Amino acid sequence: MADTYEIVFQPSGRRGTIAEGTTLLAAAQELGVGIEALCGGKGVCGKCRVIIEEGHFEKLGVFSSFAHASDLTETEKKLFSEKELSRGYRLACLAQLKGDLVITIPEESRSAKQIILEAGKKRTFSLNPAVRQYQLQLPPATLQDARDDRSRILDTLAQQYHLKDIAIDYFVLREIPRIIREDNWKITVTVWNNREIIRIAAGWNTPHSIGIAIDIGTTTLAAFLCDLNTGELLGKSSCMNPEISYGEDVLARISYAMSEEDGRRRLQQVMQDAINKLAAEMTARAGKTVDDVEEMVLVYNTAMHHFTLGLDTRYIGRSPFVPTASDALDIKARDLGIHINPSGNIHSLPIEAGFVGADNVAVLLAEEPYASDSIKLIIDIGTNGEINLGNKNRLLSTSCATGPALEGAQISFGMRAAPGSIEAVSINPETKEPRYKVIGNNIWYPENKKPGAQGICGSGIIDAVAALYTAGIISSNGRINKNVSTPRVRKDTRGRMEYVLAWAEETSVNKDITISQSDIRAVQLAKGALYVGAKYLMEKYGITQVDEVILAGAFGSYINKQSAMELGMFPDCDLTHVYAVGNAAGDGARIALLNVDKRKEAAQIARKVEFVETAIEPDFQSRFMDALAIPHAKDAFPHLHKNNDS
Amino acid sequence: MADTYEIVFQPSGRRGTIAEGTTLLAAAQELGVGIEALCGGKGVCGKCRVIIEEGHFEKLGVFSSFAHASDLTETEKKLFSEKELSRGYRLACLAQLKGDLVITIPEESRSAKQIILEAGKKRTFSLNPAVRQYQLQLPPATLQDARDDRSRILDTLAQQYHLKDIAIDYFVLREIPRIIREDNWKITVTVWNNREIIRIAAGWNTPHSIGIAIDIGTTTLAAFLCDLNTGELLGKSSCMNPEISYGEDVLARISYAMSEEDGRRRLQQVMQDAINKLAAEMTARAGKTVDDVEEMVLVYNTAMHHFTLGLDTRYIGRSPFVPTASDALDIKARDLGIHINPSGNIHSLPIEAGFVGADNVAVLLAEEPYASDSIKLIIDIGTNGEINLGNKNRLLSTSCATGPALEGAQISFGMRAAPGSIEAVSINPETKEPRYKVIGNNIWYPENKKPGAQGICGSGIIDAVAALYTAGIISSNGRINKNVSTPRVRKDTRGRMEYVLAWAEETSVNKDITISQSDIRAVQLAKGALYVGAKYLMEKYGITQVDEVILAGAFGSYINKQSAMELGMFPDCDLTHVYAVGNAAGDGARIALLNVDKRKEAAQIARKVEFVETAIEPDFQSRFMDALAIPHAKDAFPHLHKNNDS
Repeated sequence: MADTYEIVFQPSGRRGTIAEGTTLLAAAQELGVGIEALCGGKGVCGKCRVIIEEGHFEKLGVFSSFAHASDLTETEKKLFSEKELSRGYRLACLAQLKGDLVITIPEESRSAKQIILEAGKKRTFSLNPAVRQYQLQLPPATLQDARDDRSRILDTLAQQYHLKDIAIDYFVLREIPRIIREDNWKITVTVWNNREIIRIAAGWNTPHSIGIAIDIGTTTLAAFLCDLNTGELLGKSSCMNPEISYGEDVLARISYAMSEEDGRRRLQQVMQDAINKLAAEMTARAGKTVDDVEEMVLVYNTAMHHFTLGLDTRYIGRSPFVPTASDALDIKARDLGIHINPSGNIHSLPIEAGFVGADNVAVLLAEEPYASDSIKLIIDIGTNGEINLGNKNRLLSTSCATGPALEGAQISFGMRAAPGSIEAVSINPETKEPRYKVIGNNIWYPENKKPGAQGICGSGIIDAVAALYTAGIISSNGRINKNVSTPRVRKDTRGRMEYVLAWAEETSVNKDITISQSDIRAVQLAKGALYVGAKYLMEKYGITQVDEVILAGAFGSYINKQSAMELGMFPDCDLTHVYAVGNAAGDGARIALLNVDKRKEAAQIARKVEFVETAIEPDFQSRFMDALAIPHAKDAFPHLHKNNDS
Repeated sequence: MADTYEIVFQPSGRRGTIAEGTTLLAAAQELGVGIEALCGGKGVCGKCRVIIEEGHFEKLGVFSSFAHASDLTETEKKLFSEKELSRGYRLACLAQLKGDLVITIPEESRSAKQIILEAGKKRTFSLNPAVRQYQLQLPPATLQDARDDRSRILDTLAQQYHLKDIAIDYFVLREIPRIIREDNWKITVTVWNNREIIRIAAGWNTPHSIGIAIDIGTTTLAAFLCDLNTGELLGKSSCMNPEISYGEDVLARISYAMSEEDGRRRLQQVMQDAINKLAAEMTARAGKTVDDVEEMVLVYNTAMHHFTLGLDTRYIGRSPFVPTASDALDIKARDLGIHINPSGNIHSLPIEAGFVGADNVAVLLAEEPYASDSIKLIIDIGTNGEINLGNKNRLLSTSCATGPALEGAQISFGMRAAPGSIEAVSINPETKEPRYKVIGNNIWYPENKKPGAQGICGSGIIDAVAALYTAGIISSNGRINKNVSTPRVRKDTRGRMEYVLAWAEETSVNKDITISQSDIRAVQLAKGALYVGAKYLMEKYGITQVDEVILAGAFGSYINKQSAMELGMFPDCDLTHVYAVGNAAGDGARIALLNVDKRKEAAQIARKVEFVETAIEPDFQSRFMDALAIPHAKDAFPHLHKNNDS
């Protein structure tokens, strides 16, 4: 038996006892330390650069590490500069253990790369995708080594990467004989979850694996295309939820699915089509093909989850509101009719309870209140609003029906956040004249005389209603003041009051873009529901003040937190502690796509969160009516007024 | 903590230490002892009858076991007779451990039921299928217990049957909400390999699981329908291999698959169609539906394996003859286009090497030479003949091209063993008049004047050629003796000699059924190849005499071993040690369908057998030519002549 030595890897500090002659790469793998080694340890890719340290280390004493590794190979002498060599650089796949060693793995060689999502605030996490590529050099088949192709691949994978008990998906199996012989027995295999080979490509210069994360809202789908090898965001896309034609809200669609023969299948079909279209568009725009998409992560509320997966929704709409399946699921793309690599998987994040779905779990993954000391109020604004309150000690959540107004739907000139939509608005309290900005056009009206507005998106409508109030055009109860002297306040053809945000000649639709009394009412209903939900959670938690407010939602652009506060969308909080983070559910989906550990975290969260049913509270209705008003009392919103005064 | 007691189960002798209060059923499950318990231990099905033993047991001393179990329940008092109660009968799911116990599990309660296949000789093995049904009583969903349906099922399965880490196939998941509520939360789940639920049905009176085993030969498919709950054979069916239209032999089909665009896909398609037709026919005839078919086991040679699974066959026909995959595979029926329960699996037995396929592994499974002291020569006669020689010490195999003559194909009046085919023949050496028997007609010609023959199947042609020789109509070299005085020996229209086996008026095809000189030649070539292959293996093994000869093949009926011996199809052996066992590959497939342990055995066999390439031996050709003759030398075949003389 060989001698064994102590080895320590920095910066993780992992250590263990390893047999003499083991390569540093194999030692790292044995101890679970991640080192990049694309070529699988053949001294070819030059990725597994490590530094052998010299000097004094507590338990190991003083020694010269240099003598504790095998001699420099010719490959390493060519690869490294003199300076690097004297610093102690080696290739982990070539250097062998000859004595106790302390090894530093420089940032560029660590396989757990850090990823930063650009959101309302930074989200940092490690790159640790379910799908990984491995380069293999297979020994050629000969009469002496006539193993079958499948065993040849699996044996080599076990030898080069210590990956064992791996299956090969049947769809992959069919074509391997040709592929493995195409480039001199060099192949790149794509392994899912250390469990199954989902692709085998000839050669080592294969395209990176890509993945897609989609946040499927009741009204909007937001999709993200990511490079799974680097974590890079390759593109985004969004579209309306096509199921809207079968029912504006969740309950209408559930009833459609039950009443129409084939209704469930049709809802699934239009969703598959929408997802396939998003995937095809995004990959084409990024110069990729859908076949290179190796995994997809989906988040949604419970109803969208069931519709998308074609599950029976009959019982989620009635007491005791039991979903078909709430844990995370992995479903083969081909079984779900999703046109990516047919051997790839669709990972569905777990749903929480009743109507609180995987999208809320994704929001929590992104915001991590469960890891926080301070108490966060997280409001995810969509057709169903999800509210979370808590910190690492306790986490509460509730759901409320806000309607699609805050997503720019079901209001007179509402539209999805897309080029042409008015996304930001302010109104001069003196002249009652607006300033507004259109997506795709950086110069505001009126500096830009013809910004070509087509409609108003969610963040625009929130801004507009808040601005109408601060400009004195609407009163606290939301009513438009007909005595305001401006041609913009007028009656429509049916005699109902409205405010003209953009004159026809400024638009690309050749119509005055207006905000109607009922648009304002829809915003009030939505923000009132959110406010009351948040207050109930605070009472349940036993607090009167939160430390942070997080405003999330798939608006396409960020909501203006000042406007949201002015509307009274959430309980009072210092505005510097209010964050508009954009689509946190989408971010959570991306995080789960790029890091499998976060999927385990998601499972824990889904079980940990306490769901609070607020609509059954006896005083719900009266408190909800009170919350419709736009706040003006200094005592209720001290921070709001402090801000306005300053 | 509860006290623990010793418990021993007879007849297996399994013993262990178990906590007080544990039911005998749970104790048995903990110790891996199989007890039937359809209802999952709720005292409902009455299947888990066990006997508490009294008296002296070596390690436990003398005691009265009766007091060592909990009191009789009302259920048991009603279920058992006075006599049974005094004998010590209990229900294992209700009786609890209160002290040391010795328990006998009567045959009818053992879950590993013994199955006997009726073949040339008895094959006995335990029933231990991959697919098992479990009856569950789910706790109804309430506001207090609002678990999702999936978790509710999996939790109950773990509780009632100790089955953990079970997945539910996605196709099953879609419909569970309706099914589990249909019969008062009573369901029957079908679990595959203790790993995945492949069906959930409402109630406890669901149809038994059924399975299909198919032996896919180059020329013939033989299929078997089995009840997986009881092991019972529900039906058989066979058909021609539809790929014959794309090439008579394996190499022609491989070349078709490569040369034609879409050729590989077409070969797979016609095979899928044939399998689906067999499955549909057999299930319909047995009064079942294909949806109740939960698993299928396939055996075949390497080429048929690849064609059926749609694998690339480019490299199996050229050196170094490497298959795409040789280990056993489980493929979802839906992925393979097989129309049974789409969540069910197609289990493909492992292939051995080169052209020695899963069908040979199945033959070995059925015959178990690897468990035998005596040395067996096993000849599986088909378009490719597979020969195995050995015992528990060593096992050799080879393959030889016999052509389809011995299956009744490619001879003048050859046909598959089916109603109308002549399956047995003898010829009077004096009168040169034949006697023959037609499948589907128990009375022989000439007692039956018009038996309605359509053609000759494999066993018939072997009988006929042997009888032609012993009747002196053909000589040792196979030539028809034109001087024999009978109108049955005549020239055909092209002047070639033939023997009329049946006159037109005796047939249902209104033509004389004849055996031509080239038919005889085809039989000689086939039997010569088998003989030479067997001799090479004997030399390799270092023996001059085998202990047993096993003649196997998918003839549909049994080959006449005396005729085979007279033809010189195998080296000399005492005829009482020659067994004609019919379709051993089909039997092996059935055994693998009914017992998962045998699948593990198959994997071991496939690795253990030494493959011998005989065609490359330098003296092959000359020995093959010598073997074409029909034996007449007493020294070469002493047993043959001893038999003939007696």
